[in-house]
Amino acid sequence: MQTVGVIGGGQLARMMISAAHELGVPLQVYADAEGSASELAATAIGDPADVDRVLDFAAGVDVITFDHEQVPQQTLAALAAAGVPTEPKAEALQFAQNKLLMRNALEELGLPQPAWAAVYSVADVDDFIAANGGKAVVKTPTGGYDGHGVRFVTSGTEVADWFVAGEPLLAEAMVEFKRELSQMLARNASGEIKPWVVVETIQRNGVCNEALAPAPQIGSEQAELARRIGVSIADGLDVTGVFAVEMFETTAGEILVNELAMRPHNSGHWSMDGAVTGQFEQHIRAVLNMPLGDPTMRDAHAVMVNVLGGPTDETFDTALADTMREYPELKIHWYGKSYRPGRKVGHINGFGADATGLIEHARAAAKLLKTDSMY
Amino acid sequence: MQTVGVIGGGQLARMMISAAHELGVPLQVYADAEGSASELAATAIGDPADVDRVLDFAAGVDVITFDHEQVPQQTLAALAAAGVPTEPKAEALQFAQNKLLMRNALEELGLPQPAWAAVYSVADVDDFIAANGGKAVVKTPTGGYDGHGVRFVTSGTEVADWFVAGEPLLAEAMVEFKRELSQMLARNASGEIKPWVVVETIQRNGVCNEALAPAPQIGSEQAELARRIGVSIADGLDVTGVFAVEMFETTAGEILVNELAMRPHNSGHWSMDGAVTGQFEQHIRAVLNMPLGDPTMRDAHAVMVNVLGGPTDETFDTALADTMREYPELKIHWYGKSYRPGRKVGHINGFGADATGLIEHARAAAKLLKTDSMY
Repeated sequence: MQTVGVIGGGQLARMMISAAHELGVPLQVYADAEGSASELAATAIGDPADVDRVLDFAAGVDVITFDHEQVPQQTLAALAAAGVPTEPKAEALQFAQNKLLMRNALEELGLPQPAWAAVYSVADVDDFIAANGGKAVVKTPTGGYDGHGVRFVTSGTEVADWFVAGEPLLAEAMVEFKRELSQMLARNASGEIKPWVVVETIQRNGVCNEALAPAPQIGSEQAELARRIGVSIADGLDVTGVFAVEMFETTAGEILVNELAMRPHNSGHWSMDGAVTGQFEQHIRAVLNMPLGDPTMRDAHAVMVNVLGGPTDETFDTALADTMREYPELKIHWYGKSYRPGRKVGHINGFGADATGLIEHARAAAKLLKTDSMY
Repeated sequence: MQTVGVIGGGQLARMMISAAHELGVPLQVYADAEGSASELAATAIGDPADVDRVLDFAAGVDVITFDHEQVPQQTLAALAAAGVPTEPKAEALQFAQNKLLMRNALEELGLPQPAWAAVYSVADVDDFIAANGGKAVVKTPTGGYDGHGVRFVTSGTEVADWFVAGEPLLAEAMVEFKRELSQMLARNASGEIKPWVVVETIQRNGVCNEALAPAPQIGSEQAELARRIGVSIADGLDVTGVFAVEMFETTAGEILVNELAMRPHNSGHWSMDGAVTGQFEQHIRAVLNMPLGDPTMRDAHAVMVNVLGGPTDETFDTALADTMREYPELKIHWYGKSYRPGRKVGHINGFGADATGLIEHARAAAKLLKTDSMY
């Protein structure tokens, strides 16, 4: 059996570990520091930019995958040169690392997305704003993650400090959206593709906080469109592994691609309990180019609510017992991370026939489990 | 959060680990050797009879539980003297260690079981045989495990070699049974009890090989009786943790208790995927005296088939891929153990509406996954 190496030691790596072990797949982790994953798997400590260290780690595994996309292309090139396969490949990963590359690629695939432009100056931004209703979202193409490197502007001067000569920014039209959707899929190197149902995601302070599966009241045409967009991206960008296509559903009923994540994703955590095959098991299968599992939902509805760190974990034991007592039917997933206000420290999954009751219970459980001010 | 220590490092410990980590519960293992569990958790190596070593291990954990019942009462007494709680307690564990104590205790509780006697000599056995239709099952009270220490006899001389002066054996009437059932339950120290549905178990060569949940065509009265027997044992023997009551359903329709296992059990593996709360998560909750989860089945039916080691694991990678391709809807659980013909190396779970299709698929998948001569 091949050994999987995971670069990054956060909760995604942690949740891959149990899934891998159930399948008899050995797994090792390369992480910046001891953390969420290192309790559960052999872990090498190092920076993803430290090419020598990564190559040392790679010598002990058969295929490498990722807990996050912040892995320099130099590291990926060195792995390729050393003959170590990565899933996804560097070429696919770059579309999650560089938003301009992504916009270009989606345009070439003819997929629906917000109006966008590469802008090189304040004047470029002003032109874009003038052409797009007097406002724009400006993003740094790289390094952006969960709301960093994004500004909502009505004038180019508001991002003047971001311009470095010759380096473009990404300008996007502000989308009037009704809600956000996420289409997750898995694809293996043989080209087998399995999509989960499209879900609605609810953000708080720019962070994915809740997922409702399937997206409530979604029409079959829209669900089919989301699925087709996902499949086009999977094939068109040669994605391998599990990945997420985050989308806007506009007030006019369009579906526009917002972001790509080339890895298991918060919006797919519901699948651990809500689908026949959860995203972490599916990712391990895909990374090893094994046949994919059935992504069908097990119940009519499933929900996921993140648990965010409060000011302290002093009350955690009591809060956990209270949550278990109150909601014996919900699944608690804990990441073994130290507390920090607003940090994702776990999530709660629910499943069943009553969508409204489910999300109410899951929200109440997440609230009970910590004392964060976001609620 | 309290740290759980598990004595024994087999597949039961291994499956407790993932369940514990999802709940944010730290767990350590004390095992005879590196094995199934040591890939996933900090593991101390030692014999359960080595009291000093066990006490060293116990100093680093808050509560101790068990992967198997082969832990000497001296070790348990030393733990109690050192103030380390064990769940289940020594008093409960002894009923799984000594079949004569179990028979006595069940009799005191007034629970249905086969006719039995403590026999001290060949003559005693012959008397028992004469009173019970000309045959008996004779068992060594302690050390018996999965068919060892059991003889089916028609004359006392057939167990003459087992008698040591003053040491009784257990004689039981041969039961004409239609099938075997298993009732699993969890109980925590606060006295909360949660039973799963009663299941039918199918043995091969004396080893539990398949479980069907719920037991097919079981009447509601019989199911209720099985549940009440389980609850009586839980309370009557002060059991804590998850445990199994293995029973015969006789051709006359009676239910008689056969064996007790004071730990998660093969007949409960289906619950990992088939119930809202699986037996390993429930055991961790119970051991920490936390509120128990919902044991309700998620689908109308669930099945489990063991995968037994074939003569070699050479073909495992191919067999695994073939199994995944053929049965994308089944859940594969692997124990990370070395192969040995007939050894339990994993199991396959299925769930859904069609009981017949499920067991056929799970059997075929288990067969595909190895080349064991038992099939």
